Amino acid sequence: MPDPFKQLHDAMDQFATERDWDQFHSPKNLAMALTVEAAELQECFQWFTEEQSKELDEKQLSAVRDEIADVQLYLIRLAGKLKVDIEQACWEKMDKNAEKYPAEQVKGSAQKYTSYQKHNV
Amino acid sequence: MPDPFKQLHDAMDQFATERDWDQFHSPKNLAMALTVEAAELQECFQWFTEEQSKELDEKQLSAVRDEIADVQLYLIRLAGKLKVDIEQACWEKMDKNAEKYPAEQVKGSAQKYTSYQKHNV
Amino acid sequence: MPDPFKQLHDAMDQFATERDWDQFHSPKNLAMALTVEAAELQECFQWFTEEQSKELDEKQLSAVRDEIADVQLYLIRLAGKLKVDIEQACWEKMDKNAEKYPAEQVKGSAQKYTSYQKHNV
Amino acid sequence: MPDPFKQLHDAMDQFATERDWDQFHSPKNLAMALTVEAAELQECFQWFTEEQSKELDEKQLSAVRDEIADVQLYLIRLAGKLKVDIEQACWEKMDKNAEKYPAEQVKGSAQKYTSYQKHNV
Repeated sequence: MPDPFKQLHDAMDQFATERDWDQFHSPKNLAMALTVEAAELQECFQWFTEEQSKELDEKQLSAVRDEIADVQLYLIRLAGKLKVDIEQACWEKMDKNAEKYPAEQVKGSAQKYTSYQKHNV
Repeated sequence: MPDPFKQLHDAMDQFATERDWDQFHSPKNLAMALTVEAAELQECFQWFTEEQSKELDEKQLSAVRDEIADVQLYLIRLAGKLKVDIEQACWEKMDKNAEKYPAEQVKGSAQKYTSYQKHNV
Repeated sequence: MPDPFKQLHDAMDQFATERDWDQFHSPKNLAMALTVEAAELQECFQWFTEEQSKELDEKQLSAVRDEIADVQLYLIRLAGKLKVDIEQACWEKMDKNAEKYPAEQVKGSAQKYTSYQKHNV
Repeated sequence: MPDPFKQLHDAMDQFATERDWDQFHSPKNLAMALTVEAAELQECFQWFTEEQSKELDEKQLSAVRDEIADVQLYLIRLAGKLKVDIEQACWEKMDKNAEKYPAEQVKGSAQKYTSYQKHNV
């Protein structure tokens, strides 16, 4: 199977080139656009309870799905500009996290979880 | 080649289960965490000019790489909770974008680009 | 009583001038910094339930207080650069909201609230 | 002159009460809404150069003005729920910043500025 990150990267590259939009895509600008899309994704959930956020209806899920795609597409575009291999970066980050937070020490602890998040920045 | 989205999803699922952290991972909370990570990624660039953002040194790039991974990992986790196929969602979103913004009509136009972004929310 | 917005504005202006940091404070960069601070404020709450977010302990509240200040200070700085009168802008926005969402029509309706939010962008 | 923070707080409180929307306004949810509004404000600038962001036309400025108001209003609402005095919090945060970053040591240094930002989270 071909690498989906590479396929999506190449398709977006072509899309931007055909429209001459590459000029807007500095890493700084792409990082801004990524945050904006993440906020739009978050907005879908902001007045829901946590329980409601697990039980989206078809229309809500469709909107969320589009926003997930927008975040993913800008992330691939940004990573491409910086020649970062997303998949490789993820595996290495997971290794770091596993080393820093041994399961036996942090299990079931909300405090350790918050601390994990704090140090995970 | 195995699907990297699925592999990363399964690894994160195991990671959270081993630490009993699944209880924190409602879609609402994951969407919040995703935005926070996107903002941390953006923070790496905020005082740089656009040109500087293209020429990161090794240390800066390493920090950016970790933040890209954090965004990707939370996105995969969120999509998994909602049973959204990220790759499929991306292809469908790209089709929508291509239909809405025909290359011959919008080429090289910053205004059309901004309008594209406005309607792309 | 002196205008707190103006006093804080002037104090920040002096602070940046004394450090020669005005060069970094384009509206674009300040808007980025503002979002980053808002995300840090949000991060204080992200693994809490809604109920827990209402009952912060002293240490948590102190952290939240500092983040609220950071958001406010960047907002004042950004508005100053654009010569926007924040207080005036708030009153005018509230008038728009009141006109668009008559109390008798939307009372107690979560759907109307979500719709209100949607149109309130 | 009456305190603008208090006046705006009271007006928003009445607005929410008349619509029975207080039920949605947990600190957690308000912090989410605040970030979303900050991202919308940022979106106004994301494809502009820094120079362009300084020279908004009337229509752009009007949009920015409304977003600034939205951020301010949610910040006041959030602070009110937590009984945080925004103005007081700002002055105390500025004192902390002044102590940590003596003007004579950091003047004109972008690196010190970035470090200032890093420690200013």
